[in-house]
Amino acid sequence: MTQPEALTTLPRPASTTEAIRLQLRSWPEVETYLQDCKGVIVPLGSTEQHGPTGAIGTDALTAEAVALEVGRRCGVLVTPAQAFGMAEHHLGFAGTVSLQPSTLLAVLHDVVLSLARHGFERIFVINGHGGNIATAKAAFAQAHASAAARGLPQAERLRCRLANWFMAPPVMQKARELYGEREGHHATPSEIALTLHLEPSLVAKQRPLPTPAPAGPIHGPEDFRRRHPDGRMGSDPYLASATDGALFLDLAATALSSDLERFLAEEA
Amino acid sequence: MTQPEALTTLPRPASTTEAIRLQLRSWPEVETYLQDCKGVIVPLGSTEQHGPTGAIGTDALTAEAVALEVGRRCGVLVTPAQAFGMAEHHLGFAGTVSLQPSTLLAVLHDVVLSLARHGFERIFVINGHGGNIATAKAAFAQAHASAAARGLPQAERLRCRLANWFMAPPVMQKARELYGEREGHHATPSEIALTLHLEPSLVAKQRPLPTPAPAGPIHGPEDFRRRHPDGRMGSDPYLASATDGALFLDLAATALSSDLERFLAEEA
Amino acid sequence: MTQPEALTTLPRPASTTEAIRLQLRSWPEVETYLQDCKGVIVPLGSTEQHGPTGAIGTDALTAEAVALEVGRRCGVLVTPAQAFGMAEHHLGFAGTVSLQPSTLLAVLHDVVLSLARHGFERIFVINGHGGNIATAKAAFAQAHASAAARGLPQAERLRCRLANWFMAPPVMQKARELYGEREGHHATPSEIALTLHLEPSLVAKQRPLPTPAPAGPIHGPEDFRRRHPDGRMGSDPYLASATDGALFLDLAATALSSDLERFLAEEA
Amino acid sequence: MTQPEALTTLPRPASTTEAIRLQLRSWPEVETYLQDCKGVIVPLGSTEQHGPTGAIGTDALTAEAVALEVGRRCGVLVTPAQAFGMAEHHLGFAGTVSLQPSTLLAVLHDVVLSLARHGFERIFVINGHGGNIATAKAAFAQAHASAAARGLPQAERLRCRLANWFMAPPVMQKARELYGEREGHHATPSEIALTLHLEPSLVAKQRPLPTPAPAGPIHGPEDFRRRHPDGRMGSDPYLASATDGALFLDLAATALSSDLERFLAEEA
Amino acid sequence: MTQPEALTTLPRPASTTEAIRLQLRSWPEVETYLQDCKGVIVPLGSTEQHGPTGAIGTDALTAEAVALEVGRRCGVLVTPAQAFGMAEHHLGFAGTVSLQPSTLLAVLHDVVLSLARHGFERIFVINGHGGNIATAKAAFAQAHASAAARGLPQAERLRCRLANWFMAPPVMQKARELYGEREGHHATPSEIALTLHLEPSLVAKQRPLPTPAPAGPIHGPEDFRRRHPDGRMGSDPYLASATDGALFLDLAATALSSDLERFLAEEA
Amino acid sequence: MTQPEALTTLPRPASTTEAIRLQLRSWPEVETYLQDCKGVIVPLGSTEQHGPTGAIGTDALTAEAVALEVGRRCGVLVTPAQAFGMAEHHLGFAGTVSLQPSTLLAVLHDVVLSLARHGFERIFVINGHGGNIATAKAAFAQAHASAAARGLPQAERLRCRLANWFMAPPVMQKARELYGEREGHHATPSEIALTLHLEPSLVAKQRPLPTPAPAGPIHGPEDFRRRHPDGRMGSDPYLASATDGALFLDLAATALSSDLERFLAEEA
Repeated sequence: MTQPEALTTLPRPASTTEAIRLQLRSWPEVETYLQDCKGVIVPLGSTEQHGPTGAIGTDALTAEAVALEVGRRCGVLVTPAQAFGMAEHHLGFAGTVSLQPSTLLAVLHDVVLSLARHGFERIFVINGHGGNIATAKAAFAQAHASAAARGLPQAERLRCRLANWFMAPPVMQKARELYGEREGHHATPSEIALTLHLEPSLVAKQRPLPTPAPAGPIHGPEDFRRRHPDGRMGSDPYLASATDGALFLDLAATALSSDLERFLAEEA
Repeated sequence: MTQPEALTTLPRPASTTEAIRLQLRSWPEVETYLQDCKGVIVPLGSTEQHGPTGAIGTDALTAEAVALEVGRRCGVLVTPAQAFGMAEHHLGFAGTVSLQPSTLLAVLHDVVLSLARHGFERIFVINGHGGNIATAKAAFAQAHASAAARGLPQAERLRCRLANWFMAPPVMQKARELYGEREGHHATPSEIALTLHLEPSLVAKQRPLPTPAPAGPIHGPEDFRRRHPDGRMGSDPYLASATDGALFLDLAATALSSDLERFLAEEA
Repeated sequence: MTQPEALTTLPRPASTTEAIRLQLRSWPEVETYLQDCKGVIVPLGSTEQHGPTGAIGTDALTAEAVALEVGRRCGVLVTPAQAFGMAEHHLGFAGTVSLQPSTLLAVLHDVVLSLARHGFERIFVINGHGGNIATAKAAFAQAHASAAARGLPQAERLRCRLANWFMAPPVMQKARELYGEREGHHATPSEIALTLHLEPSLVAKQRPLPTPAPAGPIHGPEDFRRRHPDGRMGSDPYLASATDGALFLDLAATALSSDLERFLAEEA
Repeated sequence: MTQPEALTTLPRPASTTEAIRLQLRSWPEVETYLQDCKGVIVPLGSTEQHGPTGAIGTDALTAEAVALEVGRRCGVLVTPAQAFGMAEHHLGFAGTVSLQPSTLLAVLHDVVLSLARHGFERIFVINGHGGNIATAKAAFAQAHASAAARGLPQAERLRCRLANWFMAPPVMQKARELYGEREGHHATPSEIALTLHLEPSLVAKQRPLPTPAPAGPIHGPEDFRRRHPDGRMGSDPYLASATDGALFLDLAATALSSDLERFLAEEA
Repeated sequence: MTQPEALTTLPRPASTTEAIRLQLRSWPEVETYLQDCKGVIVPLGSTEQHGPTGAIGTDALTAEAVALEVGRRCGVLVTPAQAFGMAEHHLGFAGTVSLQPSTLLAVLHDVVLSLARHGFERIFVINGHGGNIATAKAAFAQAHASAAARGLPQAERLRCRLANWFMAPPVMQKARELYGEREGHHATPSEIALTLHLEPSLVAKQRPLPTPAPAGPIHGPEDFRRRHPDGRMGSDPYLASATDGALFLDLAATALSSDLERFLAEEA
Repeated sequence: MTQPEALTTLPRPASTTEAIRLQLRSWPEVETYLQDCKGVIVPLGSTEQHGPTGAIGTDALTAEAVALEVGRRCGVLVTPAQAFGMAEHHLGFAGTVSLQPSTLLAVLHDVVLSLARHGFERIFVINGHGGNIATAKAAFAQAHASAAARGLPQAERLRCRLANWFMAPPVMQKARELYGEREGHHATPSEIALTLHLEPSLVAKQRPLPTPAPAGPIHGPEDFRRRHPDGRMGSDPYLASATDGALFLDLAATALSSDLERFLAEEA
């Protein structure tokens, strides 16, 4: 993965990917880190169909890549990705793995509570899947309630923020510029482009596709498959290229790094 | 409550408020109704502080009023309101009653499943509280999953839609026009205006207030109260008038009636 | 609604309906109220079939009316009604909306905990539906356990009481006097009478009905519908009149006001 | 345990205790049994303080003894007792073990569903503890809902009944006759008498006690202990004798055997 | 039941069965007990098919007998047995009663929390069923988390231990010695032997059986029944005798008494 | 990562890592795959302290690496890892993230149900953390129950298997051979070795450490930290080398590949 240049205006020194992966740190290193920074990034994805040519892991792969790049630039720790998300409506397509909303709510609740216990006060969830948004927000409210109910000393200072990389304004603007209406709403060229940048082997799946079924509201899995027989919602993912993907990674990381810095700088 | 003129373009004949309140119908009447219409409206509110001069019931009173007006114009049944919503972050203010996200999720899940069992296929939830949005959407996904898991014959045709009256474009535009920046984000003049229209006794509480604390992201109840000491988020509710409220009711009902008609007309 | 005369023996001054509706109060008003009175009334109903001529909202409409009248007489705050209750056994009839027992348990638990957090110490639930009784009592026990587990300072002084208006001795005695055996057990003339008093439009549904199926124990929804094909359990609701309804409202409010006053006067 | 004489009017032949204990049967014997009888008895107790001289197991020991005697007389299978019940309010006294209402609800739900799956259609729960009543009834409603949701073939014919032995009219009448007001409401002489009959070693604990705290409504555990410092509610358990206990066992078994026979004879 | 000789090396004096049954103690006796000993034994069984000749109660009867014998020898209190366990995979055979894993988890969680509240610090669960092991261990972890979250003063000193009597090395060695390969894995001669010792009436069911289906991994109930048509897994239970059973009881009680003593002696 | 040579005896052709990562497949590819193979591998890890020099991600990194190697050799699909597991007892050390047992149970239940819905019949969970074992097994039982309750056509053929790579006999034997007693029980040289092989940057953390606290039973987090102040349980992780790690990967993959092949070959 080519690394786009780091933001030069950030107060925190940029770091290496190894240094900011929580998985590669020891607990004393985390204790030391917490003396300087109370922030942490949690990548949240999904494991679900992305059309006839897209990778099932698109939402988790992209969320994790953006999270690591934001973490690297800002010097903020990144937890491992929660790769299973809320994808009930995609269960009509083979390979989709979905957590029920109540399950995902419990997962994010427990993750936030664990982190708050150690003294993390700014939980920045970088999300790659629209279907997670509602449940993640509900989980934040539940976690705040639990932190108070359990009398955690940091309950008052705890804050959670959801950052959907694919909805960052510069990302959406560039997608519109590159693909216009054909960006669509699921298995979009922008997210597919990012996966091509991250996993070159995926390029082999790219091929022209017929006109997709138009986007529309989302209901149950049978309804979804009937209305979107190949899984796409108004998108032409074959417009995507790995070069575009590198651009999207940089745009998303730049936008979210700013959001994260502001989040960290908010006074308690 | 003065009734604004009905939409003339609706295919379904307008009705009376009595006729569309599910509470005032008998079960054979509902059976008959279902032969013609599979739609139903569920008002969803909250019971939470609305600043030093606003009514605690604002979100439920307004959601119910808009729901009844939309139901009347479209001839669609309206269930009783769920007046307790997700208001964890307002629990620092006396009188707030909150359901945890997991509880509200279960409530809406059960309501949707009950209605689906009878053959309702278009559940239109008219919501008066931003804090409910995430949980309501999560509940819809969970209800779809349950309907399928239980083998309900209508599982495939079931659809749920969340309609936030205060976010209807004509409502937001008018609020900006009338109050500009002072509309704010909680205890807003637009919602307070609607309560003044619905409950004239509330006018007595209106009085000038100091500059409100600015809006910001929402965390736990202690944090909320510390940053918004009188409960308002950037709003000047004393700008509201009952006349404005009547206007907002009409604008909301007009916009949501169109949305509902389109929802009912969607092909299965 | 004609207001029966207030009890003259109550120590607390009677109030207006507007004054005691929590929905119409602001949070500073609730704070002030709590300095004098730690009591609050929660109306609990159900949304379920009430025979071929009765209103689906009977249990919620009547519980709320009795609650407001008791609140007015005693000067005690009344929350909005929880109109969806536990009505699993009525789900075989169109229009019934039921919360599972575990869901209703969570709702009442959260409502009690919210109120206790503000300093309310006497939660008086006025209930209109027999099917809610078991779950409401279970919820009170769960709420006591949670209040203690969360270390709420008022946990020790918190008390919940369930008041079923239709089981108040003067109400049952009058119903027996007026209707004898034909009072029955579901869609009873006494509750229907109260709805006729509250909602005159319901009178139009009244008509003679064939002999009802006899009351019996309650099991699942299919069993219920098979044994009670029109939804009634041993009742002749066409005996009801709005005049009777006004009487029942007064009797219930008188009896429950006394109960509430005793509840408030119990020493901690 | 002396066995009181069997009812002579029962259609089903009386049996031995060994024969009706589900624990002592093999699965083919249960299959054979189900060809003739769809009934089963589930003893439900509690493990909680019973005053300064009463046994912590009182409610489970008595429920199980009555259940075995009813089962023996009627020739109906008896499952093992669920000895842990809902006793949150007794947790202030050492030795009390309580399931939260939501837990007990799940236990009874699962027990009923298991039995229904095998073809049992009449579940007769013999209960020894007032605190279980609400939750048990809620569990029955939840079980009915689940049986239907899971499409169990016997869902329509499934029936659950709660039989509280200590509230059987002949039992209550005899207790009043023997002890008058001093029967009280918890750690009562009648239930203590039955334990003395069942477990002679308990007689050694009997001794005169000071006047008990009066009975009253039940709230949280701290409140309970403060108001009932030795655990009794208005009862004088030292009035009890093993001879009385044998009588109570016979009265309870006679009354509940009739109830059970009627329950089994109800047409589907 | 003949009592095997007590271990002579135990520091705590042996006791009588009456004295160590929690059900036969009063709360002041438990308070006194806790001044000397923080340990308690919880018998955990199951109610499930044990082959064509075995008793459905095998796992609960044996767990309770071992628990009482261990308690008697060590002078440690024994709660009543939780006779319903996790037996989902046996639900294909009549008479099996199963708690779902999530339910059993809640039961054991609540039992441990109740005991911890009183000051018990060593919870020794004597288990008779392999299917309970996973859930019991999960419940211990959940109970530790809750005890800390609720701020129980003894949270830090609380310890739970699972003791599966049938897996005690001397028991397994003796079973192999007596029955070799024909011990099998379910409805084993060793556990059946113990039931024959405890309940002589069970001997009448014993008879030669055809070669059992071999043991194998456990999946759903239909799969289990298809692969193990008479419920046995590789076992020849007709090899069992009551005399063997008395031996197994002694071996198990000896081994588990040592384990318990070590557990009690662990420094906090 | 150097790839150890593939097993030559496997009937299924070895594959590439790209080809067996579910995240890199499209849904039609999964549909095609299912025509030949009903197996799938789910890596399950944990995110928890591993002593003063070990990586917090050890359990997830190793589980995923073994899973990918087994998948590659056997040509079986591998889902993304569930990197958050049950680590309540490690929460006393900074950086640990834990799901409560009830949450992890729900996650694995939903994952298995999702996969079963598509027709997967052999779910092989490769686990890197002892603390997950109990909950994972409980989840399998719950998933079997749900699959049957929901009437999934494949419910009868569904099988789940837990494979703990660190307990594979050749792995344990080699660890004993290399490190003897100093292997210990948490933050062991064998698992640390594997992480050194996978992530060379971790070598920099390696350093001699004082004698570790001995292993012992696991209770709550405070107890754990008090007894194991640096997080190790009897282990000397500085004995580990990347070369050892490559060996452990090969041994684990060889053992688990055989297990998986047998699992796939089991007749339904």
